[in-house]
Amino acid sequence: MEAVKELSYALDTFYFLMSGALVMWMAAGFSMLEAGLVRSKNTAEILTKNISLFAISCIMYLLVGYQIMYGGGTDGGIFPSFGSLIGAENTAAQVTAGGDDAPYYSKMSDFFFQVVFVATAMSIVSGAVAERMKLWAFLLFAVVFTGFIYPVEGYWKWGGGFLQEAGFQDFAGSGVVHMAGAAAALAGVLLLGARKGKYGKDGSVHAIPGANLPLATLGTFILWLGWFGFNGGSQLQLSTVDNANAVALIFVNTNMAAAGGVVAALLTAQLLFGKADLTMALNGALAGLVAITAEPLTPAPLTATLIGAVGGIIVVFSIISLDKLKLDDPVGAISVHGVVGIWGLLAVPLTNTDANFSAQLLGIGTIFAWVFIASFIVWMLLKMVMGIRVSEEEEHNGVDLSECGLEAYPEFTKGA
Amino acid sequence: MEAVKELSYALDTFYFLMSGALVMWMAAGFSMLEAGLVRSKNTAEILTKNISLFAISCIMYLLVGYQIMYGGGTDGGIFPSFGSLIGAENTAAQVTAGGDDAPYYSKMSDFFFQVVFVATAMSIVSGAVAERMKLWAFLLFAVVFTGFIYPVEGYWKWGGGFLQEAGFQDFAGSGVVHMAGAAAALAGVLLLGARKGKYGKDGSVHAIPGANLPLATLGTFILWLGWFGFNGGSQLQLSTVDNANAVALIFVNTNMAAAGGVVAALLTAQLLFGKADLTMALNGALAGLVAITAEPLTPAPLTATLIGAVGGIIVVFSIISLDKLKLDDPVGAISVHGVVGIWGLLAVPLTNTDANFSAQLLGIGTIFAWVFIASFIVWMLLKMVMGIRVSEEEEHNGVDLSECGLEAYPEFTKGA
Amino acid sequence: MEAVKELSYALDTFYFLMSGALVMWMAAGFSMLEAGLVRSKNTAEILTKNISLFAISCIMYLLVGYQIMYGGGTDGGIFPSFGSLIGAENTAAQVTAGGDDAPYYSKMSDFFFQVVFVATAMSIVSGAVAERMKLWAFLLFAVVFTGFIYPVEGYWKWGGGFLQEAGFQDFAGSGVVHMAGAAAALAGVLLLGARKGKYGKDGSVHAIPGANLPLATLGTFILWLGWFGFNGGSQLQLSTVDNANAVALIFVNTNMAAAGGVVAALLTAQLLFGKADLTMALNGALAGLVAITAEPLTPAPLTATLIGAVGGIIVVFSIISLDKLKLDDPVGAISVHGVVGIWGLLAVPLTNTDANFSAQLLGIGTIFAWVFIASFIVWMLLKMVMGIRVSEEEEHNGVDLSECGLEAYPEFTKGA
Repeated sequence: MEAVKELSYALDTFYFLMSGALVMWMAAGFSMLEAGLVRSKNTAEILTKNISLFAISCIMYLLVGYQIMYGGGTDGGIFPSFGSLIGAENTAAQVTAGGDDAPYYSKMSDFFFQVVFVATAMSIVSGAVAERMKLWAFLLFAVVFTGFIYPVEGYWKWGGGFLQEAGFQDFAGSGVVHMAGAAAALAGVLLLGARKGKYGKDGSVHAIPGANLPLATLGTFILWLGWFGFNGGSQLQLSTVDNANAVALIFVNTNMAAAGGVVAALLTAQLLFGKADLTMALNGALAGLVAITAEPLTPAPLTATLIGAVGGIIVVFSIISLDKLKLDDPVGAISVHGVVGIWGLLAVPLTNTDANFSAQLLGIGTIFAWVFIASFIVWMLLKMVMGIRVSEEEEHNGVDLSECGLEAYPEFTKGA
Repeated sequence: MEAVKELSYALDTFYFLMSGALVMWMAAGFSMLEAGLVRSKNTAEILTKNISLFAISCIMYLLVGYQIMYGGGTDGGIFPSFGSLIGAENTAAQVTAGGDDAPYYSKMSDFFFQVVFVATAMSIVSGAVAERMKLWAFLLFAVVFTGFIYPVEGYWKWGGGFLQEAGFQDFAGSGVVHMAGAAAALAGVLLLGARKGKYGKDGSVHAIPGANLPLATLGTFILWLGWFGFNGGSQLQLSTVDNANAVALIFVNTNMAAAGGVVAALLTAQLLFGKADLTMALNGALAGLVAITAEPLTPAPLTATLIGAVGGIIVVFSIISLDKLKLDDPVGAISVHGVVGIWGLLAVPLTNTDANFSAQLLGIGTIFAWVFIASFIVWMLLKMVMGIRVSEEEEHNGVDLSECGLEAYPEFTKGA
Repeated sequence: MEAVKELSYALDTFYFLMSGALVMWMAAGFSMLEAGLVRSKNTAEILTKNISLFAISCIMYLLVGYQIMYGGGTDGGIFPSFGSLIGAENTAAQVTAGGDDAPYYSKMSDFFFQVVFVATAMSIVSGAVAERMKLWAFLLFAVVFTGFIYPVEGYWKWGGGFLQEAGFQDFAGSGVVHMAGAAAALAGVLLLGARKGKYGKDGSVHAIPGANLPLATLGTFILWLGWFGFNGGSQLQLSTVDNANAVALIFVNTNMAAAGGVVAALLTAQLLFGKADLTMALNGALAGLVAITAEPLTPAPLTATLIGAVGGIIVVFSIISLDKLKLDDPVGAISVHGVVGIWGLLAVPLTNTDANFSAQLLGIGTIFAWVFIASFIVWMLLKMVMGIRVSEEEEHNGVDLSECGLEAYPEFTKGA
């Protein structure tokens, strides 16, 4: 039986590592999605932001974030303790000693899986503040968000804090990851203001088309693939029949929700605009994925399709509404991850009898309030100390030249 | 021993899910391949088609296709029964009860693996009808193809129907998936006609170069990677020494066939045209992959290389020949998946002693006839009811503007 | 217990196959990275080179390379024997017979994992000689390098030759793969000379910007993801607690080293140039990955971050220095894989007590000398027989037209 326990440990560890690798791949997805949806003159900067924020997320989460989120000293509380570093790995003796408390997967594989989640949350922010923000101010924000703001609310739910105790249900992070990223983005967008030329003085809204839609589509497919790791890995165990069945159902539901989102958003766009708007189909896929993330295990596949489809409808109207409010979010991140994230959290009680609306609302309210207020303060401090917005001339010429000193497509265009 | 059976179940389920995720990734591959091989003015539309057909495939296969294909009521027959939905998952008690009939992997993981196959078949169609077809007519065709046409012939082979009974061998779907997709594409191409300007009245053929070859190359690499799941997962079990060896050999043979296809197609192009034509190398890789898909398990790796190489040679001549017949297939899908798919099926008896040419010919004939005729009827109905081809002016301006209302690369070009 | 041994064999085989698939994916990464960093007029050719070299690597390694590298007849020697082909697979009886010598994974899965490594080494060469080399001369070099030059030095270390005996430590190939590729590249660059216009007669250096930085960024992310297979698979076993822990730590360290490389290179570029240079951030990520490849198992994660960060600093200065030496390497491959590869090898004794500097220096010296000299001779022979450099006019017009007869982006640009 010892060999069986070792083998089981190896399989669950491998499952964590493969899931984590898929989530790491989402960093490429966000990069391509955002690079495709901005103008060519701001493309190199958003790529720089994306690869740098991923690196910063990993370093800050290793240094402090993981300890805050899973330090474990104050279960059920609001204030996390500051735990020690990852700590010694499980030994074979511990694993095979048996008992329900015996570790069943590598601590390092757990860290690997968790660290790519914080990068996902941070990636959401970068798109919303695109085309007008100073690079280094953004990266400094990333340091604070990934090292402190995200881990605190992550602790509330997944570290055993008060939201976990209160019965708040968020399987893989519609709230903890996606709405949190959107809340930080919203704070940044409010302080930054809209891009020049986006909103006319007469209340008109001017579409600013993305420069490279194949890239945006690629990014969406990458995210769709990565989401199998995001949701599938969040079951946290594979090695029994029940767990394997659960992971398989999560894969199916994740896929069906994305499919529902695509079809619903495309039909909605066709009805509203008379055209099959590709960017809405892409946002629909992502909305479906965000919507199912709060609970990919209890719905039947057809229900998952519907949950995703509702997400796909919501995201179209949300994008239109935010523009009416003059909240300029070049890639629709606040709608996809924030508004639809809330829908996903509210949909949990429809299929999961362990959930209730009051706990869901408590989670939505406290996570949003914490992340929004803390982020707003950090953005504000950055604005006062170093400024967060590039000059009008730099914005006109593109942030690629001013921030990165190069062009993303030097031979194709001189910018629009 | 119960723990071992549970663990084995978990490993096989995980193997299905990882394989399925790789096949899902092929959707991104087809999208990038096709988007790279069309002109820029038709790029957004083909991206919209690809992500939408994937979504539609998942929904239709969940609703009806899977039940038709694996409903199971009429083994050995021509007419499938209509089974029930996926059904209750296997319980731990069923798994550990033992016996040869005990389930060894999750039903949901099986659905996940199967559903991405139907999307692959449908993706093949979208490239062939590119640059001139109405988007919604195409998507309606996708509804019928994925919900009905594909599942019926899939049932004939993999659902236990008459082709399975007759000894037709098609390991992972050179015929069931690839030639089927090509047959549906051919029917569409015949009814649509060629793109304006492709064939001169004097019999001349005008090359219409793809706008973005890095994208096409990326798509080919994605498909190559995804094919490890496509063929490797089709062994359907991993958890014993014999099965693990089989899966490993399938990976090697799949890779070697693609390699053989690249080299053979590149040399053929160099000899014919005097240039190392990249698009032929890409088609050669895909041809090698299609060719080995009918039987990736019985050939030795060198034999697999040769099977792929023959596919790579065939595809070059097939593309030239189809142009002589004025069959306008912008991405070469009919050659890659149809003509080479037939080669793959005919090559099976060369290495697999359980196969024979008459059963292979029966399979080729019946699958082609069914899919071609059924598709032709559906395309024809669509043509009569709503039309399948855009207007000349829309075609001239690009279907991106007329169908999607946006441009794929608004800053790079005004179209060619 | 037989079932457990079979299951363990299946898991380890699957781990090899998934790792190998990730490394195969690196071929797409190199393709996109290099395609993004060259000018548009030379893009189709570099794509052709990349997909073709991958195919050639697979075929040559199957035909001869694998037998040379792992033929096994002369352990501890300099001259490898020429072994037989892969040989008969392990039987279930062999696996379950037990004993420490019993095979624990499929031979075919081992070949699959090894074959994608040789392609990686070869990919490194293609970037350095970009924009001026004849395609077929390059592909002929690939035949010799992958069939002979690489397998010989690979045998010295991983096949049990004298470097293994001497205590040279190179876990996943900072030297055997990366520095070897860079040494072959350096020989080619010396014989080819710089691109026209790169270096002025007055000693000035003219930057030649890459045409498509989103592609280059995508390539970097692909390589980052693939590296989890590259390093993680090199543990060669997963199925026990200790091995699973090792693989998990390798994943974390690989990721952290890349993160350290990004941040260090970006800061270095900002300090040196006053701009957050995206291409340096990308090179920093790759440098971190190369640096940790020699020993991803013994460092703690923070140490791995530092090892990667030092790599990220080195790569910036190395790229600047090579330009001063008028060594024209369009993508920085010699710096990333060669100079930083040496750093990685020298860093091994800092954390691995089994390593010592003299053995590391012996390995660096003999691998570099062998690969550089052998490659130089082959390049020289190719230069004498068929020429290795395109004509001035062809270089001016772009090698896409002269070598491949098509353009990568026919609608976007007429070249720079």
